[in-house]
Amino acid sequence: MEAFEHHFRESMRSRVALLDKITHYIVKRKGKQIRPMFVFLCAKACGTFTEAAHHGAALVELLHTATLVHDDVVDDAWQRRGFFSINALWKNKIAVLVGDYLLSRGLLLSLDHKQYRLLHLVSDAVRKMSEGELLQIEKARRLDITEEVYYEIIRNKTASLIASCCAVGAAASGADEDRIETMRAFGEKVGIAFQIKDDLLDFGDSETGKAKGGDIKERKLTLPLIHALQQAPAGERRKMKSLIRSGSDKPEVVEEVIHYIQKSGGIAYARKAMELHVNEAIALLDTLPESESRESLRALVHFTINRTS
Amino acid sequence: MEAFEHHFRESMRSRVALLDKITHYIVKRKGKQIRPMFVFLCAKACGTFTEAAHHGAALVELLHTATLVHDDVVDDAWQRRGFFSINALWKNKIAVLVGDYLLSRGLLLSLDHKQYRLLHLVSDAVRKMSEGELLQIEKARRLDITEEVYYEIIRNKTASLIASCCAVGAAASGADEDRIETMRAFGEKVGIAFQIKDDLLDFGDSETGKAKGGDIKERKLTLPLIHALQQAPAGERRKMKSLIRSGSDKPEVVEEVIHYIQKSGGIAYARKAMELHVNEAIALLDTLPESESRESLRALVHFTINRTS
Repeated sequence: MEAFEHHFRESMRSRVALLDKITHYIVKRKGKQIRPMFVFLCAKACGTFTEAAHHGAALVELLHTATLVHDDVVDDAWQRRGFFSINALWKNKIAVLVGDYLLSRGLLLSLDHKQYRLLHLVSDAVRKMSEGELLQIEKARRLDITEEVYYEIIRNKTASLIASCCAVGAAASGADEDRIETMRAFGEKVGIAFQIKDDLLDFGDSETGKAKGGDIKERKLTLPLIHALQQAPAGERRKMKSLIRSGSDKPEVVEEVIHYIQKSGGIAYARKAMELHVNEAIALLDTLPESESRESLRALVHFTINRTS
Repeated sequence: MEAFEHHFRESMRSRVALLDKITHYIVKRKGKQIRPMFVFLCAKACGTFTEAAHHGAALVELLHTATLVHDDVVDDAWQRRGFFSINALWKNKIAVLVGDYLLSRGLLLSLDHKQYRLLHLVSDAVRKMSEGELLQIEKARRLDITEEVYYEIIRNKTASLIASCCAVGAAASGADEDRIETMRAFGEKVGIAFQIKDDLLDFGDSETGKAKGGDIKERKLTLPLIHALQQAPAGERRKMKSLIRSGSDKPEVVEEVIHYIQKSGGIAYARKAMELHVNEAIALLDTLPESESRESLRALVHFTINRTS
């Protein structure tokens, strides 16, 4: 990971002082770097660990950072990871430009090293991520999202990046197409479980965390509520929908909806769906030869769904 | 150009209805498409016209459209080409995502057709464009920009995209590295002349146009003012700078500055610099074998610097 960080910092260097200041700031506030970890562990678990894995990890992290910076614009987020967001500090204008710059550095890095396969896997993830977010916006104000649409959104929006990390790791280690596809599917299932966990946390699925109900406030329909509405009698469903429509910004409405979801088994249903995806992911992992890296991947998956925030 | 438009429309197609609606809107309000024209003419003037030129033109236009959509966020522009901007209609959020989506489609298009060289040329332009804009922002509030910095900004911000169009056209036609570099240099000079013309138009360099002074209002130092300040005696320079600093938003100050620039020969100086770049560009063109496409390129260059808006 240390060698990677050196690589990553180097890959962002620019002649523009303002840009260097911002990328320095980005490196300092960096998160858990789960994505490069997926790349490295998948590379090791699938075959030989080479330079290509480093390029793949830097590509994925540059891209992920670019989308985070762009997301700051998208979400009008004023804080991210406890620091002020790039957006708040330097305004939307700069955030968009820095995101584009990081994207271009990722492109050049992979082209310079002729990592075309890795670049294709990651470009595909960029396409899916923007499509997924746009699909979510398109459906945002509708209260009749089906489970099918929900899965399409999170498969694209969240899971595609982790899926590409795993596929990139496999491809970088010289795995054949079948194995690359297995690892992609593994990452996708992990990503879906990750997002369901995220949605559950919003309803208080942890010993320490309190239900925040932020998704309800924004009228973002997630699995627990979708299921609760789906299995409700028509009259009850109508009543809940008009309650959300009329006052999703009021704390007492949010509380009532959360209570309704808990009572109607929406939480339990979503937790089951999450576990199902985790089990399917682990089953795919079991097709790999036994190794330390495979066990680390297993641990990483369990960490993902057992987190409390 | 008709075949190109079909290609271009196809390359944006998505399964997300909202996205299709927006890209349809983008195609409808499309501009003069000068960039694909540079690609096609350079390809024809340098050698054989192949499918690769189509991919190159679509790549460049997807990228250019992505940056325009992102620029709508950047500039907080409410109108673009007489229509409402994507930004105004669908908000920043969507503009960023649509830009990312178009970028990814361009990437996938070139990777699917193994056009790695073209992609490299264009990625380099993306890097330079964002660096150039960030450099301009960094220097925006300083009134001591030198000509050297001015050229660095416009070479990156504006000229790099036209330079990459010309290089892409040459590369797509199978030209050797020397010729690709010649065409890149040609496009860069055209792009610099284009930007100087743009800056001149802001001071009323046309029979029909009126000086708007928008750049002064935003304290954006361009060549005519840079030169005027540079050659002024120290006392006069100080006076002008403090005038701009104190009231660049007042119409009477803008008018006074414009008058000063005209009087001190800043306009004439910038016009000469523009013509110098055009002549250098034409000289590079003359190294190509005689052809109809070469003459069309010559005409396109003259159109660029003789426009009145």
